[in-house]
Amino acid sequence: MREIGLRTERRTQLVEITELVEEALQPPDGAAAALIYVPHTTAGVTINEDADPVLAQDIEAAMERIVEDGWGKHSDADGPNAPSHIRASLISPQVLVPLAEGRLALGRWQGIFFCEFDGPRERKVYVTPLR
Amino acid sequence: MREIGLRTERRTQLVEITELVEEALQPPDGAAAALIYVPHTTAGVTINEDADPVLAQDIEAAMERIVEDGWGKHSDADGPNAPSHIRASLISPQVLVPLAEGRLALGRWQGIFFCEFDGPRERKVYVTPLR
Amino acid sequence: MREIGLRTERRTQLVEITELVEEALQPPDGAAAALIYVPHTTAGVTINEDADPVLAQDIEAAMERIVEDGWGKHSDADGPNAPSHIRASLISPQVLVPLAEGRLALGRWQGIFFCEFDGPRERKVYVTPLR
Repeated sequence: MREIGLRTERRTQLVEITELVEEALQPPDGAAAALIYVPHTTAGVTINEDADPVLAQDIEAAMERIVEDGWGKHSDADGPNAPSHIRASLISPQVLVPLAEGRLALGRWQGIFFCEFDGPRERKVYVTPLR
Repeated sequence: MREIGLRTERRTQLVEITELVEEALQPPDGAAAALIYVPHTTAGVTINEDADPVLAQDIEAAMERIVEDGWGKHSDADGPNAPSHIRASLISPQVLVPLAEGRLALGRWQGIFFCEFDGPRERKVYVTPLR
Repeated sequence: MREIGLRTERRTQLVEITELVEEALQPPDGAAAALIYVPHTTAGVTINEDADPVLAQDIEAAMERIVEDGWGKHSDADGPNAPSHIRASLISPQVLVPLAEGRLALGRWQGIFFCEFDGPRERKVYVTPLR
Protein backbone atom coordinates (compact mmCIF):
# COMPACT_ATOMS: atom_id res chain seq x y z
CA MET A 1 0.00 0.00 0.00
CA ARG A 2 1.43 3.34 -1.05
CA GLU A 3 0.20 6.75 0.10
CA ILE A 4 -0.45 10.00 -1.76
CA GLY A 5 -0.90 13.28 0.12
CA LEU A 6 -2.75 16.29 -1.21
CA ARG A 7 -4.23 19.57 -0.05
CA THR A 8 -7.62 20.75 -1.25
CA GLU A 9 -8.55 24.42 -1.56
CA ARG A 10 -12.34 24.56 -1.71
CA ARG A 11 -15.32 22.98 0.05
CA THR A 12 -16.36 20.89 -2.95
CA GLN A 13 -13.51 20.25 -5.35
CA LEU A 14 -12.44 17.63 -7.87
CA VAL A 15 -8.63 17.33 -8.01
CA GLU A 16 -7.07 15.23 -10.75
CA ILE A 17 -4.65 12.65 -9.32
CA THR A 18 -4.00 10.42 -12.37
CA GLU A 19 -0.26 11.16 -12.52
CA LEU A 20 0.19 10.79 -8.75
CA VAL A 21 -1.48 7.37 -8.92
CA GLU A 22 0.65 6.34 -11.90
CA GLU A 23 3.81 7.31 -9.97
CA ALA A 24 2.68 5.50 -6.83
CA LEU A 25 2.30 2.31 -8.90
CA GLN A 26 5.97 2.13 -9.97
CA PRO A 27 7.26 -0.51 -10.13
CA PRO A 28 4.01 -2.40 -10.82
CA ASP A 29 5.65 -5.81 -10.27
CA GLY A 30 3.17 -7.75 -12.34
CA ALA A 31 0.00 -6.29 -10.78
CA ALA A 32 -3.26 -6.70 -12.73
CA ALA A 33 -5.19 -3.79 -11.18
CA ALA A 34 -4.74 -0.75 -8.93
CA LEU A 35 -7.03 0.02 -6.00
CA ILE A 36 -7.36 3.76 -5.35
CA TYR A 37 -8.84 4.16 -1.85
CA VAL A 38 -9.80 7.31 0.10
CA PRO A 39 -9.59 6.83 3.92
CA HIS A 40 -11.92 9.78 4.66
CA THR A 41 -15.67 10.06 5.29
CA THR A 42 -16.27 13.41 3.55
CA ALA A 43 -14.33 12.71 0.35
CA GLY A 44 -14.26 10.08 -2.38
CA VAL A 45 -12.83 9.26 -5.79
CA THR A 46 -14.27 9.12 -9.29
CA ILE A 47 -13.19 8.68 -12.90
CA ASN A 48 -14.32 11.09 -15.59
CA GLU A 49 -13.10 13.23 -18.48
CA ASP A 50 -10.03 15.31 -17.70
CA ALA A 51 -9.73 17.28 -20.97
CA ASP A 52 -12.19 20.08 -20.10
CA PRO A 53 -11.87 21.72 -16.64
CA VAL A 54 -15.46 22.97 -16.95
CA LEU A 55 -16.69 19.38 -16.53
CA ALA A 56 -15.10 19.04 -13.06
CA GLN A 57 -16.99 22.19 -12.04
CA ASP A 58 -20.21 20.74 -13.46
CA ILE A 59 -19.76 17.57 -11.38
CA GLU A 60 -19.03 19.65 -8.25
CA ALA A 61 -22.20 21.69 -8.80
CA ALA A 62 -24.25 18.57 -9.52
CA MET A 63 -23.23 16.90 -6.25
CA GLU A 64 -24.32 20.03 -4.36
CA ARG A 65 -27.60 20.01 -6.27
CA ILE A 66 -28.40 16.30 -5.75
CA VAL A 67 -27.65 16.54 -2.01
CA GLU A 68 -28.65 20.01 -0.86
CA ASP A 69 -26.87 22.01 1.84
CA GLY A 70 -28.95 21.82 5.01
CA TRP A 71 -29.92 18.14 4.73
CA GLY A 72 -29.45 16.00 7.86
CA LYS A 73 -28.73 16.57 11.53
CA HIS A 74 -25.16 15.28 11.95
CA SER A 75 -22.44 17.68 13.14
CA ASP A 76 -18.67 17.26 13.21
CA ALA A 77 -16.39 19.34 15.45
CA ASP A 78 -16.53 22.05 12.76
CA GLY A 79 -20.35 22.20 12.60
CA PRO A 80 -23.13 20.49 10.61
CA ASN A 81 -21.79 18.64 7.54
CA ALA A 82 -24.12 15.71 6.82
CA PRO A 83 -24.29 16.70 3.11
CA SER A 84 -20.49 16.26 2.83
CA HIS A 85 -20.79 12.70 4.19
CA ILE A 86 -23.79 11.83 1.99
CA ARG A 87 -22.04 13.11 -1.16
CA ALA A 88 -18.99 10.96 -0.26
CA SER A 89 -21.13 7.80 -0.04
CA LEU A 90 -22.81 8.57 -3.39
CA ILE A 91 -19.47 8.94 -5.20
CA SER A 92 -17.77 5.97 -3.40
CA PRO A 93 -14.49 5.84 -1.46
CA GLN A 94 -12.70 3.64 -3.98
CA VAL A 95 -12.16 2.81 -7.61
CA LEU A 96 -10.33 -0.17 -9.09
CA VAL A 97 -8.57 0.28 -12.44
CA PRO A 98 -7.08 -2.53 -14.55
CA LEU A 99 -3.40 -2.32 -15.54
CA ALA A 100 -1.94 -3.14 -18.95
CA GLU A 101 1.84 -3.52 -19.18
CA GLY A 102 2.19 -1.92 -15.77
CA ARG A 103 0.21 1.23 -16.56
CA LEU A 104 -3.37 2.27 -15.77
CA ALA A 105 -5.61 0.98 -18.59
CA LEU A 106 -7.70 4.16 -18.59
CA GLY A 107 -9.90 5.01 -21.56
CA ARG A 108 -8.75 7.80 -23.89
CA TRP A 109 -10.68 10.53 -22.06
CA GLN A 110 -10.51 9.16 -18.51
CA GLY A 111 -8.71 10.72 -15.56
CA ILE A 112 -8.89 9.86 -11.84
CA PHE A 113 -10.25 12.61 -9.59
CA PHE A 114 -10.07 12.96 -5.81
CA CYS A 115 -13.47 14.36 -4.75
CA GLU A 116 -13.33 16.79 -1.81
CA PHE A 117 -16.70 17.43 -0.16
CA ASP A 118 -15.61 19.17 3.07
CA GLY A 119 -12.49 21.18 2.24
CA PRO A 120 -10.15 22.81 2.39
CA ARG A 121 -8.25 19.97 4.11
CA GLU A 122 -5.09 17.86 4.07
CA ARG A 123 -6.06 14.51 2.52
CA LYS A 124 -4.61 11.08 1.79
CA VAL A 125 -5.18 8.47 -0.91
CA TYR A 126 -4.00 4.84 -0.67
CA VAL A 127 -2.84 3.08 -3.83
CA THR A 128 -2.67 -0.73 -3.68
CA PRO A 129 -1.51 -2.96 -6.57
CA LEU A 130 -3.47 -6.22 -6.85
CA ARG A 131 -2.62 -9.44 -8.70
CA MET B 1 -15.11 -16.39 -0.14
CA ARG B 2 -16.55 -16.17 3.36
CA GLU B 3 -20.17 -15.35 4.20
CA ILE B 4 -21.74 -13.05 6.81
CA GLY B 5 -25.44 -13.32 7.68
CA LEU B 6 -27.50 -10.50 9.15
CA ARG B 7 -31.10 -9.55 9.76
CA THR B 8 -32.34 -6.03 9.10
CA GLU B 9 -35.22 -4.45 11.02
CA ARG B 10 -36.41 -1.51 8.94
CA ARG B 11 -37.20 -0.73 5.29
CA THR B 12 -34.21 1.58 4.86
CA GLN B 13 -31.43 0.89 7.35
CA LEU B 14 -27.65 1.22 7.58
CA VAL B 15 -26.17 -1.58 9.72
CA GLU B 16 -22.52 -1.38 10.68
CA ILE B 17 -20.64 -4.58 9.78
CA THR B 18 -16.99 -3.53 10.28
CA GLU B 19 -16.28 -6.07 13.03
CA LEU B 20 -18.06 -8.89 11.18
CA VAL B 21 -15.92 -8.18 8.11
CA GLU B 22 -12.74 -8.05 10.21
CA GLU B 23 -13.61 -11.46 11.74
CA ALA B 24 -14.42 -12.98 8.34
CA LEU B 25 -10.95 -11.96 7.14
CA GLN B 26 -9.05 -14.03 9.72
CA PRO B 27 -6.57 -15.39 8.90
CA PRO B 28 -5.77 -12.88 6.12
CA ASP B 29 -3.00 -15.12 4.66
CA GLY B 30 -1.11 -12.31 3.00
CA ALA B 31 -4.11 -10.68 1.29
CA ALA B 32 -3.68 -7.07 0.07
CA ALA B 33 -7.38 -6.08 0.00
CA ALA B 34 -10.82 -7.30 1.06
CA LEU B 35 -13.82 -7.31 -1.28
CA ILE B 36 -17.11 -6.79 0.56
CA TYR B 37 -19.91 -7.86 -1.80
CA VAL B 38 -23.71 -7.82 -1.37
CA PRO B 39 -25.51 -10.51 -3.45
CA HIS B 40 -28.89 -8.72 -3.34
CA THR B 41 -30.62 -6.26 -5.68
CA THR B 42 -32.32 -4.07 -3.06
CA ALA B 43 -29.33 -3.59 -0.75
CA GLY B 44 -25.74 -2.37 -1.01
CA VAL B 45 -22.69 -1.41 1.02
CA THR B 46 -21.00 1.89 1.82
CA ILE B 47 -18.24 3.32 3.99
CA ASN B 48 -18.85 6.32 6.19
CA GLU B 49 -18.39 7.69 9.72
CA ASP B 50 -19.45 5.31 12.47
CA ALA B 51 -18.92 7.56 15.50
CA ASP B 52 -22.31 9.33 15.39
CA PRO B 53 -25.47 7.18 14.89
CA VAL B 54 -27.34 10.28 13.70
CA LEU B 55 -25.27 10.26 10.51
CA ALA B 56 -26.53 6.78 9.50
CA GLN B 57 -30.08 8.13 9.86
CA ASP B 58 -29.15 11.16 7.75
CA ILE B 59 -27.86 8.89 4.97
CA GLU B 60 -31.02 6.73 5.16
CA ALA B 61 -33.22 9.84 4.85
CA ALA B 62 -31.08 11.22 2.01
CA MET B 63 -31.41 8.05 -0.06
CA GLU B 64 -35.21 8.24 0.33
CA ARG B 65 -35.11 11.89 -0.68
CA ILE B 66 -32.87 11.46 -3.76
CA VAL B 67 -35.00 8.55 -5.03
CA GLU B 68 -38.58 9.21 -4.01
CA ASP B 69 -41.10 6.53 -3.04
CA GLY B 70 -43.44 6.00 -5.97
CA TRP B 71 -40.82 6.21 -8.74
CA GLY B 72 -40.87 3.46 -11.39
CA LYS B 73 -43.22 0.66 -12.43
CA HIS B 74 -41.39 -2.51 -11.34
CA SER B 75 -43.02 -4.82 -8.80
CA ASP B 76 -41.56 -7.75 -6.87
CA ALA B 77 -43.72 -10.50 -5.34
CA ASP B 78 -44.24 -8.15 -2.35
CA GLY B 79 -45.45 -5.20 -4.44
CA PRO B 80 -43.89 -2.17 -6.16
CA ASN B 81 -40.31 -1.55 -5.03
CA ALA B 82 -38.41 0.10 -7.89
CA PRO B 83 -37.04 2.80 -5.51
CA SER B 84 -35.36 0.06 -3.40
CA HIS B 85 -33.55 -1.27 -6.50
CA ILE B 86 -32.58 2.22 -7.73
CA ARG B 87 -31.14 3.19 -4.31
CA ALA B 88 -29.11 -0.05 -4.31
CA SER B 89 -27.52 0.79 -7.68
CA LEU B 90 -26.69 4.33 -6.52
CA ILE B 91 -24.88 3.09 -3.40
CA SER B 92 -23.15 0.12 -5.17
CA PRO B 93 -23.16 -3.59 -4.29
CA GLN B 94 -19.49 -3.71 -3.33
CA VAL B 95 -16.58 -1.94 -1.75
CA LEU B 96 -12.91 -2.92 -1.82
CA VAL B 97 -10.75 -2.00 1.20
CA PRO B 98 -6.94 -2.28 1.34
CA LEU B 99 -5.39 -4.33 4.15
CA ALA B 100 -2.33 -3.38 6.21
CA GLU B 101 -0.73 -6.11 8.30
CA GLY B 102 -3.81 -8.26 7.82
CA ARG B 103 -6.32 -5.68 9.02
CA LEU B 104 -8.70 -3.35 7.18
CA ALA B 105 -6.80 -0.11 6.46
CA LEU B 106 -9.82 2.04 7.24
CA GLY B 107 -9.41 5.73 7.96
CA ARG B 108 -9.80 6.92 11.54
CA TRP B 109 -13.52 7.67 11.24
CA GLN B 110 -14.49 5.02 8.69
CA GLY B 111 -16.83 2.08 9.27
CA ILE B 112 -18.40 -0.34 6.78
CA PHE B 113 -22.20 -0.26 6.57
CA PHE B 114 -24.61 -2.75 5.02
CA CYS B 115 -27.33 -0.65 3.35
CA GLU B 116 -30.83 -2.18 3.49
CA PHE B 117 -33.32 -0.61 1.08
CA ASP B 118 -36.16 -3.16 1.22
CA GLY B 119 -36.22 -4.55 4.75
CA PRO B 120 -36.79 -6.10 7.08
CA ARG B 121 -35.06 -9.15 5.56
CA GLU B 122 -32.47 -11.87 6.10
CA ARG B 123 -29.37 -10.78 4.19
CA LYS B 124 -25.90 -12.04 3.27
CA VAL B 125 -22.55 -10.38 2.63
CA TYR B 126 -19.60 -12.09 0.90
CA VAL B 127 -16.06 -11.25 2.06
CA THR B 128 -13.25 -12.20 -0.34
CA PRO B 129 -9.53 -11.62 0.39
CA LEU B 130 -7.53 -10.60 -2.69
CA ARG B 131 -3.75 -10.64 -3.31
CA MET C 1 -7.41 -8.16 -19.36
CA ARG C 2 -10.07 -9.29 -21.82
CA GLU C 3 -12.30 -6.98 -23.86
CA ILE C 4 -16.02 -7.05 -24.64
CA GLY C 5 -17.48 -4.92 -27.43
CA LEU C 6 -21.10 -3.79 -27.61
CA ARG C 7 -23.29 -1.33 -29.47
CA THR C 8 -25.94 0.67 -27.64
CA GLU C 9 -29.14 1.86 -29.29
CA ARG C 10 -30.53 4.65 -27.10
CA ARG C 11 -29.23 7.71 -25.26
CA THR C 12 -29.78 6.19 -21.81
CA GLN C 13 -29.86 2.40 -21.85
CA LEU C 14 -29.05 -0.49 -19.52
CA VAL C 15 -27.73 -3.49 -21.47
CA GLU C 16 -27.29 -6.79 -19.67
CA ILE C 17 -23.77 -8.19 -20.12
CA THR C 18 -23.71 -11.03 -17.56
CA GLU C 19 -23.18 -13.79 -20.13
CA LEU C 20 -20.54 -11.82 -22.04
CA VAL C 21 -18.63 -11.30 -18.78
CA GLU C 22 -18.94 -15.00 -17.87
CA GLU C 23 -17.55 -15.97 -21.30
CA ALA C 24 -14.68 -13.47 -21.04
CA LEU C 25 -13.67 -15.08 -17.75
CA GLN C 26 -13.03 -18.54 -19.22
CA PRO C 27 -10.75 -20.12 -18.21
CA PRO C 28 -10.76 -18.45 -14.75
CA ASP C 29 -7.38 -20.00 -13.79
CA GLY C 30 -7.93 -19.81 -10.06
CA ALA C 31 -9.10 -16.18 -9.95
CA ALA C 32 -10.98 -15.03 -6.81
CA ALA C 33 -12.83 -12.05 -8.33
CA ALA C 34 -13.60 -10.40 -11.67
CA LEU C 35 -13.17 -6.68 -12.31
CA ILE C 36 -15.66 -5.32 -14.83
CA TYR C 37 -14.35 -1.92 -15.98
CA VAL C 38 -15.83 0.62 -18.41
CA PRO C 39 -13.15 2.80 -20.15
CA HIS C 40 -15.62 5.57 -21.06
CA THR C 41 -16.64 8.83 -19.38
CA THR C 42 -20.34 8.82 -20.30
CA ALA C 43 -21.12 5.21 -19.38
CA GLY C 44 -20.75 2.93 -16.36
CA VAL C 45 -21.71 -0.44 -14.97
CA THR C 46 -24.14 -1.60 -12.28
CA ILE C 47 -25.61 -4.79 -10.83
CA ASN C 48 -29.34 -5.18 -10.38
CA GLU C 49 -32.26 -7.52 -11.01
CA ASP C 50 -32.40 -8.94 -14.53
CA ALA C 51 -35.70 -10.86 -14.32
CA ASP C 52 -38.02 -7.94 -15.13
CA PRO C 53 -37.08 -5.69 -18.10
CA VAL C 54 -39.31 -2.95 -16.66
CA LEU C 55 -36.79 -2.43 -13.86
CA ALA C 56 -33.99 -1.51 -16.29
CA GLN C 57 -36.32 1.15 -17.72
CA ASP C 58 -37.08 2.40 -14.20
CA ILE C 59 -33.36 2.78 -13.48
CA GLU C 60 -32.83 4.60 -16.81
CA ALA C 61 -35.67 7.02 -15.99
CA ALA C 62 -34.40 7.52 -12.43
CA MET C 63 -30.91 8.51 -13.59
CA GLU C 64 -32.46 11.12 -15.92
CA ARG C 65 -34.59 12.38 -13.05
CA ILE C 66 -31.78 12.60 -10.45
CA VAL C 67 -29.51 14.46 -12.92
CA GLU C 68 -31.72 16.58 -15.15
CA ASP C 69 -31.06 17.33 -18.81
CA GLY C 70 -29.68 20.84 -19.07
CA TRP C 71 -27.42 20.72 -16.00
CA GLY C 72 -23.83 21.93 -16.45
CA LYS C 73 -21.84 23.83 -19.08
CA HIS C 74 -19.54 21.18 -20.53
CA SER C 75 -19.77 20.32 -24.25
CA ASP C 76 -18.22 17.45 -26.20
CA ALA C 77 -17.73 17.55 -30.00
CA ASP C 78 -21.39 16.46 -30.30
CA GLY C 79 -22.79 19.24 -28.10
CA PRO C 80 -23.56 19.77 -24.41
CA ASN C 81 -23.58 16.49 -22.46
CA ALA C 82 -22.57 17.23 -18.86
CA PRO C 83 -25.55 15.20 -17.54
CA SER C 84 -24.20 12.09 -19.33
CA HIS C 85 -20.85 12.48 -17.55
CA ILE C 86 -22.44 13.19 -14.15
CA ARG C 87 -24.71 10.12 -14.40
CA ALA C 88 -21.63 7.99 -15.24
CA SER C 89 -19.82 9.14 -12.09
CA LEU C 90 -22.89 8.44 -9.92
CA ILE C 91 -23.19 4.84 -11.21
CA SER C 92 -19.40 4.16 -11.17
CA PRO C 93 -17.12 2.90 -13.97
CA GLN C 94 -16.44 -0.46 -12.34
CA VAL C 95 -17.78 -3.31 -10.30
CA LEU C 96 -15.87 -6.19 -8.71
CA VAL C 97 -17.65 -9.55 -8.35
CA PRO C 98 -16.33 -12.53 -6.36
CA LEU C 99 -15.93 -15.87 -8.13
CA ALA C 100 -16.88 -19.29 -6.76
CA GLU C 101 -15.55 -22.34 -8.59
CA GLY C 102 -14.61 -20.15 -11.53
CA ARG C 103 -18.04 -18.57 -11.99
CA LEU C 104 -19.47 -15.17 -10.99
CA ALA C 105 -20.87 -15.52 -7.45
CA LEU C 106 -23.89 -13.36 -8.27
CA GLY C 107 -26.97 -13.43 -6.06
CA ARG C 108 -30.05 -15.24 -7.34
CA TRP C 109 -31.61 -12.12 -8.90
CA GLN C 110 -28.44 -10.27 -9.89
CA GLY C 111 -27.30 -9.45 -13.41
CA ILE C 112 -24.52 -7.13 -14.62
CA PHE C 113 -25.64 -4.16 -16.71
CA PHE C 114 -23.62 -1.85 -18.94
CA CYS C 115 -25.08 1.64 -18.39
CA GLU C 116 -25.11 3.85 -21.49
CA PHE C 117 -25.66 7.55 -20.77
CA ASP C 118 -24.70 9.09 -24.15
CA GLY C 119 -25.72 6.61 -26.83
CA PRO C 120 -26.11 5.26 -29.30
CA ARG C 121 -22.39 4.39 -29.45
CA GLU C 122 -19.85 1.60 -29.91
CA ARG C 123 -18.57 0.71 -26.43
CA LYS C 124 -16.02 -1.50 -24.70
CA VAL C 125 -15.85 -3.26 -21.34
CA TYR C 126 -12.64 -4.68 -19.83
CA VAL C 127 -12.85 -7.88 -17.78
CA THR C 128 -9.86 -8.63 -15.52
CA PRO C 129 -9.56 -11.75 -13.31
CA LEU C 130 -7.91 -11.06 -9.94
CA ARG C 131 -6.35 -13.47 -7.44
